[in-house]
Amino acid sequence: MGKKIGIGLLGLGTVGTGVAKILQTPDKRHPLVRDIELVGVAVKNLERPREISIPTSILCQDPNLVIDNPAVDVVVEVIGGIEPARTLIMRAIRAGKSVVTANKAVIARHGEEIASAASKAGVYVLIEAAVGGGIPIIEPLKQSLGGNRIKKVTGIINGTTNYILSKMAKEKVPYKEVLEEAQKLGYAEADPAADVEGLDAADKIAILSGLAFGGSVERTNIPTHGINKLKSIDVDYANQLGYRVKLLAVAECLEKKENETNSLPLAVWVQPTLLPKEHPLAGVNGVNNAILVEGDPIGQVMFYGPGAGAGPTASAVVADILNIAGINFLGEKSGCLDPLLAASSWRMCHLASPNEIIQKHYLRVKTLDTPGVIGKIGTAFGEHDVSIQSIVQFDASQSGAEIVVITQEVNGEQMSKTLKEIQALKEVIGIEAQIGCL
Amino acid sequence: MGKKIGIGLLGLGTVGTGVAKILQTPDKRHPLVRDIELVGVAVKNLERPREISIPTSILCQDPNLVIDNPAVDVVVEVIGGIEPARTLIMRAIRAGKSVVTANKAVIARHGEEIASAASKAGVYVLIEAAVGGGIPIIEPLKQSLGGNRIKKVTGIINGTTNYILSKMAKEKVPYKEVLEEAQKLGYAEADPAADVEGLDAADKIAILSGLAFGGSVERTNIPTHGINKLKSIDVDYANQLGYRVKLLAVAECLEKKENETNSLPLAVWVQPTLLPKEHPLAGVNGVNNAILVEGDPIGQVMFYGPGAGAGPTASAVVADILNIAGINFLGEKSGCLDPLLAASSWRMCHLASPNEIIQKHYLRVKTLDTPGVIGKIGTAFGEHDVSIQSIVQFDASQSGAEIVVITQEVNGEQMSKTLKEIQALKEVIGIEAQIGCL
Repeated sequence: MGKKIGIGLLGLGTVGTGVAKILQTPDKRHPLVRDIELVGVAVKNLERPREISIPTSILCQDPNLVIDNPAVDVVVEVIGGIEPARTLIMRAIRAGKSVVTANKAVIARHGEEIASAASKAGVYVLIEAAVGGGIPIIEPLKQSLGGNRIKKVTGIINGTTNYILSKMAKEKVPYKEVLEEAQKLGYAEADPAADVEGLDAADKIAILSGLAFGGSVERTNIPTHGINKLKSIDVDYANQLGYRVKLLAVAECLEKKENETNSLPLAVWVQPTLLPKEHPLAGVNGVNNAILVEGDPIGQVMFYGPGAGAGPTASAVVADILNIAGINFLGEKSGCLDPLLAASSWRMCHLASPNEIIQKHYLRVKTLDTPGVIGKIGTAFGEHDVSIQSIVQFDASQSGAEIVVITQEVNGEQMSKTLKEIQALKEVIGIEAQIGCL
Repeated sequence: MGKKIGIGLLGLGTVGTGVAKILQTPDKRHPLVRDIELVGVAVKNLERPREISIPTSILCQDPNLVIDNPAVDVVVEVIGGIEPARTLIMRAIRAGKSVVTANKAVIARHGEEIASAASKAGVYVLIEAAVGGGIPIIEPLKQSLGGNRIKKVTGIINGTTNYILSKMAKEKVPYKEVLEEAQKLGYAEADPAADVEGLDAADKIAILSGLAFGGSVERTNIPTHGINKLKSIDVDYANQLGYRVKLLAVAECLEKKENETNSLPLAVWVQPTLLPKEHPLAGVNGVNNAILVEGDPIGQVMFYGPGAGAGPTASAVVADILNIAGINFLGEKSGCLDPLLAASSWRMCHLASPNEIIQKHYLRVKTLDTPGVIGKIGTAFGEHDVSIQSIVQFDASQSGAEIVVITQEVNGEQMSKTLKEIQALKEVIGIEAQIGCL
């Protein structure tokens, strides 16, 4: 009961430093922070000057030494990347130590292997910091919303792209220009691929989906479209039509078809999406994140806050450590885990085929400026039973016209058939943009 | 390990019915819901027709019988009101049973007595449903944000008044008219005092303050102003100046003065307040609630969702039951409690004097329409070191002019001295409105 919890920290970058700072200054924080003690820290370079002071006696360069240190009860992995993080997490679990990690890439790709090892070893692997920075979102999905049938999780969960999109919308600046500025400000990495191509958001929605629906899906098969091909003209047209463009990551449970296997079909995807201006996520700007959860009987709840940064991420890491420290008060380990906190999977899930995904679409079609072209396009939609919400002609000139169509909800199959037919119209020069729409 | 948890439900109104519905239909909810069993239900009237079917064998009219039933592990109190709820909660605690309650009035007034009894008996009293309906806000303050030094909690935590204010702003309808409509729609009670006078919000901010800062304040001394005296003209002027008017409930930790006692001074209050349109809470409309929490190092996080209603509130009640069920998996009770979940107080707090509260003010001053009046008012502010953010004259006519002043941040003492001086000016007919401003 209530002995001090020894923390072994793997990595002392911005997040690791943030965690150490909190643990070193427990005053005015939850009193349980005083029961948490940093007893080992693995760093790449012992000589590097640091903004916090760590006793040299607990610093070392070999993370394995930290993991194996008998004074370490909980291993905090904030190195990032797939390897050696994955191997170190597995080693900690085998050593019977609970793990706290901010590593979305490892959890999204090797979550099942890690969870299964943790369950066998009777330890926790907690990941509040892996999604949404400081926003408490993992905990609500695991615990506070447990009485609900979750229907849909919709997130703006990549701060870099949200910063770029906010700027494109507000200042009408092209994508490349905003990206360069974001890189200068440190909001985007020198190699921005993981952010702008949607891969980071896909990692995160894979994790949220697993918690919301109780079973994992194949991370690599999540349909993922980033913002790197988005044109500012579409952000502008969307604006004029009353929409904001956001990079959304969505996980939604589809109605089961009869006679199907006992696995739950999920529509999980990442793509730039038009949101009506009054949608709760439409006002989320800059590097902020927000996650909207829909369930029965709760309706809609939204969690909003800083999606990244040393302080917020460290706050989430410490939340997980506190949870383990709190349970530690209940006495000697009985080999059992709190099933809410452990959050093992409890249902089979699978990715629905893209053809089953039902949504609205925004299309920008370049056409010759000839009379009747809107009629022909409208007819093509009608022939495939696709209802149209609006069809607007922008910017007619000698070089042609731009027609923007927003459809009603259609499935993927209807949509691709319709697109083929439109493409074949002799008045149509090309389909220049296709974006999702809520 | 993992035996079924027996629930005794006191009250089968809308929230109680919502809870029973969730427990009766565990399919697709967290698998732990299957481990929770309704074993006793106390109702006022056994004969009343109900939308759910409860076995008559577990229905009774005497809540004491439910509490004393040995099959009942957790008592869920959803009767509401102070008595007999308080007595029943205390009886359950003495019987060694954990309690889940949605009763903000009892917790705000008798929280300390209840917490102290619970701590002695080694049981939990969980209250997620008492504030913000289905929004997980109690749990984050108790657990997920525990690594932070919380600075301020700002909430829109009364759905009825937020509905009225949203309507007043959008449709420019006077308060009384909107209230009557809200009563017809069931959004406001026949006796609306608890909502429109701010008492319900004061109960809730007292609870949030206690969790955020680790110590309670005297509920009855919280400065509380409702919306019942708010004029639609001020909502309209605020709008024109770029603000929304919301009924805010705030708890903020003030800097400690040197040589003071070891108690933390808190500014806790409820009042109609102007919010700049870009403030995260400004877009919260209708019966929704939202709570903004500021802390170090997290920055700002916001929790948004349905603040009332059977489904959302039942979701929060079940979240608490699940937490108890999860911990139950850890084996026989050792007499110890998880200190995060138990959330006993850990710091002395007290209400700061209103004179210490620093904020901006919105004032509407009725004056004679004579030249120089703005200058004289401006001078009065300057003499008391009150900086002005804006001063605007609205609606000059024969009957006089209306001058709206928004000050910079000032303390209560400066403000009341300034108001006296302004009132004494011969050009001033009266100070018609004084509202807080963020």
